[in-house]
Amino acid sequence: MSQDLDTLAVNTIRVLSVDTVEKANSGHPGAPMGMAPAAHVLFSKMKFNPKDPEWPNRDRFVLSNGHAVALLYTMLHLTGYDLSMEDLKQFRQLGSKTPGHPEAHTPGIEVTTGPLGQGIANAVGLAIAQANVAATYNKPDFVVSDNYTYCFFGDGCMMEGISHEACSLAGHLKLGKLICFYDDNKVSIDGSTKQEFDEDVAKRLEAYGWEVIEVPNADTDTGAILAALERAKKTDDRPTCIKMHTTIGYGSQKQGTAGVHGSPLKPEDVAQLKQKWGFDPAKSFDVPEEVYRYYRGVAAAGAEAESRWQDNFARYSKKYPELAAEYARRQAGKLPEGWESVLPVYTAADPKVATRKLSGDAIAAIVAKVPEVIGGSADLTPSNNTRWAAARDFQPASSGLGDYSGRYIRYGVREHAMGAIMNGLSAYGLNFRPFAGTFLNFVSYAAGAVRLSALSGHPVVWVATHDSIGFGEDGPTHQPIETLAHFRAMPNLMVWRPADGNEVSAAYKTALESKNTPSIVCLTRQGLPELAGSSVEKAARGGYVVREASASTAGLVLVATGSEVSLAVDAAGLLEAEGIPTRVVSLPDFFTFDHQPAEYRKAVLPDGVPILSVEVLSTFGWGKYSHVHLGLDRFGASGKGPEIFKRFGFTAEGIAQKESRPCSSSRASRSFLL
Amino acid sequence: MSQDLDTLAVNTIRVLSVDTVEKANSGHPGAPMGMAPAAHVLFSKMKFNPKDPEWPNRDRFVLSNGHAVALLYTMLHLTGYDLSMEDLKQFRQLGSKTPGHPEAHTPGIEVTTGPLGQGIANAVGLAIAQANVAATYNKPDFVVSDNYTYCFFGDGCMMEGISHEACSLAGHLKLGKLICFYDDNKVSIDGSTKQEFDEDVAKRLEAYGWEVIEVPNADTDTGAILAALERAKKTDDRPTCIKMHTTIGYGSQKQGTAGVHGSPLKPEDVAQLKQKWGFDPAKSFDVPEEVYRYYRGVAAAGAEAESRWQDNFARYSKKYPELAAEYARRQAGKLPEGWESVLPVYTAADPKVATRKLSGDAIAAIVAKVPEVIGGSADLTPSNNTRWAAARDFQPASSGLGDYSGRYIRYGVREHAMGAIMNGLSAYGLNFRPFAGTFLNFVSYAAGAVRLSALSGHPVVWVATHDSIGFGEDGPTHQPIETLAHFRAMPNLMVWRPADGNEVSAAYKTALESKNTPSIVCLTRQGLPELAGSSVEKAARGGYVVREASASTAGLVLVATGSEVSLAVDAAGLLEAEGIPTRVVSLPDFFTFDHQPAEYRKAVLPDGVPILSVEVLSTFGWGKYSHVHLGLDRFGASGKGPEIFKRFGFTAEGIAQKESRPCSSSRASRSFLL
Repeated sequence: MSQDLDTLAVNTIRVLSVDTVEKANSGHPGAPMGMAPAAHVLFSKMKFNPKDPEWPNRDRFVLSNGHAVALLYTMLHLTGYDLSMEDLKQFRQLGSKTPGHPEAHTPGIEVTTGPLGQGIANAVGLAIAQANVAATYNKPDFVVSDNYTYCFFGDGCMMEGISHEACSLAGHLKLGKLICFYDDNKVSIDGSTKQEFDEDVAKRLEAYGWEVIEVPNADTDTGAILAALERAKKTDDRPTCIKMHTTIGYGSQKQGTAGVHGSPLKPEDVAQLKQKWGFDPAKSFDVPEEVYRYYRGVAAAGAEAESRWQDNFARYSKKYPELAAEYARRQAGKLPEGWESVLPVYTAADPKVATRKLSGDAIAAIVAKVPEVIGGSADLTPSNNTRWAAARDFQPASSGLGDYSGRYIRYGVREHAMGAIMNGLSAYGLNFRPFAGTFLNFVSYAAGAVRLSALSGHPVVWVATHDSIGFGEDGPTHQPIETLAHFRAMPNLMVWRPADGNEVSAAYKTALESKNTPSIVCLTRQGLPELAGSSVEKAARGGYVVREASASTAGLVLVATGSEVSLAVDAAGLLEAEGIPTRVVSLPDFFTFDHQPAEYRKAVLPDGVPILSVEVLSTFGWGKYSHVHLGLDRFGASGKGPEIFKRFGFTAEGIAQKESRPCSSSRASRSFLL
Repeated sequence: MSQDLDTLAVNTIRVLSVDTVEKANSGHPGAPMGMAPAAHVLFSKMKFNPKDPEWPNRDRFVLSNGHAVALLYTMLHLTGYDLSMEDLKQFRQLGSKTPGHPEAHTPGIEVTTGPLGQGIANAVGLAIAQANVAATYNKPDFVVSDNYTYCFFGDGCMMEGISHEACSLAGHLKLGKLICFYDDNKVSIDGSTKQEFDEDVAKRLEAYGWEVIEVPNADTDTGAILAALERAKKTDDRPTCIKMHTTIGYGSQKQGTAGVHGSPLKPEDVAQLKQKWGFDPAKSFDVPEEVYRYYRGVAAAGAEAESRWQDNFARYSKKYPELAAEYARRQAGKLPEGWESVLPVYTAADPKVATRKLSGDAIAAIVAKVPEVIGGSADLTPSNNTRWAAARDFQPASSGLGDYSGRYIRYGVREHAMGAIMNGLSAYGLNFRPFAGTFLNFVSYAAGAVRLSALSGHPVVWVATHDSIGFGEDGPTHQPIETLAHFRAMPNLMVWRPADGNEVSAAYKTALESKNTPSIVCLTRQGLPELAGSSVEKAARGGYVVREASASTAGLVLVATGSEVSLAVDAAGLLEAEGIPTRVVSLPDFFTFDHQPAEYRKAVLPDGVPILSVEVLSTFGWGKYSHVHLGLDRFGASGKGPEIFKRFGFTAEGIAQKESRPCSSSRASRSFLL
């Protein structure tokens, strides 16, 4: 393309982004104006087909500085995705396809971003997924997967801790097909980054094992950006950062200042920049035909690339029918037929085992049957029981520690990036089902990523062990209290706290069958008995009667989760001996239970009977199900697990005596119970 | 001291740490054995007085790799803190002074650590505090403050994102009196760090502006450690990291492996190392008298240093009586007399203003009167309204942007470190009262630090603006839903959501008066009317009747928080017109309300009347106060704030019609209301 057309395209992107923000009277013009040259160069060279946004071998693009979304919408519109000029005009309006930050439901948006630093970590997940697919399905004579993962990020992303975690791991993993563009504009919301952020980002990334290529003038030098991109692609054993010196709000009268970051430009400013660049100041949302024509050409090349890939895959399917069938099954988002038959089932005769151990057994069974499951741990592998005997590590082959076909990821102590990398793995498609382990208390370190799993509908699974004061000696810094309330209050998130092996299997069954809901599976460090009344089927409803009262009408219902269910069953025995017919309900997952029919829920937790909840964490939120709550509304303590349980009244005797002791209660306890 | 005594002391530390873990049959011997030489050198040179652990000018020590706590207890015992041999024997036992991770209630423990990465960020806060105290109180002829902040950290801390945020900021701020010891032992729980962590930590820290000094053999070369420490002290304009190549579990048969990280050694292993180092294998908890004598000498020197400091301070008090009085007041933990009189009060005649703006006004009033208040924002200063007109930035003077006497910290987009730095500031003493701003939704990024504020009792204040879907166009990625439930479920945490200016003042009044409870103050982006029925005094009770029903017995109670209170008041008007006498309760803080006498609480939220809660976030947890809950149990949306409010029924009309619409309910709604 000619230099003139190049310049015209770049300025069209700038002007269209500015118009989009102006019309909404809300949004961020500065970064789109500074990043327009990079977007133009990248979208010119990127491999994608706007008519088939789900083509598995497309290059992935992530806008980690998600507030620059007007730029992305502009590119999606220009290249012919299903995003009309009218959609641009509806930017940031209720119900539009163009919300204020990228949301993955818009065609062409790979991941939901905006919370800073998430996108770069998602990109690492997308690049891991690609490397795994390539190692699993490519053959010497067939390339099934060779897509790149591209990411734009800014100073905000680089300040966030999650960027450290993600970039450090990406360097370790030698993800050569990850190429990032750093919008080094030296301005953030507070003003000059001199006030707060003068680290040497290039040196830092090099310390992680990245290649860094500088582009001194990325405002206008598209040739240098293109050269950097081509050089980056040649680097196979290191991720690349193209560090672009840009001017925020390039072209505006306020360019280079925070004033252009997060507010629309003044009308006269818009007019002058249109005039300067040869656009009609009287017109908005006006794209020169040659620019449309150019991007249609780009899109056509992408469609052709997909067509070649499809032909290639058809030939691959003949030569490698089993692999191709598996690939196609995964592409259709279907788990292997009958996979759930591998889930372990238990009877009360089985020995007492920690649910973290039972979880390990379930995982080992699942991974053997379901190749799209890819797991790991935040450096707690022996504690989380996340690694199966036959596991191979996902590692660069040069490390001698595994290869990219491995499905066990050594995440390091990087919970936040781990969560966001799981989102990236899930977003890649091909039915990737990531799981990852840490202590339940430290899932909170990843709260930002968990939230985006739930918001975007990535059905990732957290293996959250050491789920209460039962943890013991490590003490209150490690014992979760508020954690379940936090995650139960989050929309679209399952929070399983299984009581025994059957419930563990139910949790994994439901978690893997879920298409759009992530799960946190909370597991004990300490041994628990297998319950006589449990089954995978019953537990898969989220709540069920695990022990029926001796009389047809119970005098009391105990509802418990996890390690407290067996205590409640024992307590029911004591209460029955005192003449109180007592039902015990196990409620391993609120979310799933709440989605059962009302009659079922009412049958399990009937009206007109006092209900006491028993859970050794915060009672916050139990008012939904129970009248009185035995819980732990204080931090834990360092000591032997059983001693701490006893100290806080979590024994069969303690539960049975509960009614005579002070405890937290819902409104109902006053109006109904007391 | 002689080389022999040096070696004996180091080995004594190792053996005593090992004995401590053995006795508990639980804990982490590896890091103490590797870090013993550094601990010996540092505690030999550190300025502290075990008989007065609160001496303000003591050097601060933070064990960021908190699992190595047996080492710290050993040092505290040897140097004569109030920690007996019996306390060591009670390691990790319920109720002991020696829990499984450092907890700040133990004498000599500066901050509670264990969750990885928190400690290094706390240390940055401690170093900021020192720099601020020195710049505020030192005079050319008097040094009131010159203490160092020391920190030990390991690979786990360096993997965590929070370490990036904290170290990057420390480099920017040129905190030369921060000196860290990196236990570079290349082993984590999963095994060799080659599996997950091969970044060049030295280069990374240098990229942040740190000085890095390598000690090639820190297992035995105490001379090199000492030389590094002395060199580090000479560097005034950069934090220093002494990167020590150590062997985890040095001396054990399993040294250098993960096997020695988190479990007691085998008895025969303990025996061999005692034998090797000249200790009697038959004895445990046995300290050679010359080692005790040596550390008593260290402690005596520290006591003398304090005594000199006290004399100096007495002279300072004569020459600078006002400054000295302020210092003494702060040391006593007392706010300035009558400080609360500066808090703004409002009447219903005042204009509609966003509570974030009212918060800015309150802060401006407070900082002028209370010098120990030190604030900042995570790069959202203009959005959070956290900076007051006369503020000076806390910056190195060489930057030309402020100096260390400044009380406004540019935290950058580093929420997690910001929370932990606030904990460090608070832990410094001298009544430091830190506050910091970000969007409410991104306080979740700092969940790990918030938890430690609550657990340790640091009364820090989060200025959490943009507290709901009222935020508007930025959309669901930025609009909090589960956030209030998360933090309300946390023990010892106030979560204020003020409805108007008087309630904002009440929030700050209570937050600052609190000695041991942190606060999150949730504030709107959108304007809210001043309520006729509010007052600082009423709101300071956490909940109160803001509008009484027209009849002596209300037919309905509406209970709301923040931006929904004025809507509820309007709805009450509509309901009264329909003949339903309606009371409105404002409940700005659950924690404070729950601490009111039962009669008061019952008077505000009476029995026998249906109660409907109105809050535009998750209904989770409202069962505690209300029978039926109008809330938002889904993610938000991008659009204009008022339109989103309307879409989800948050209008006076929507609330008044609430009873006829589906909504979430507590158990009580079935047994009592319906």
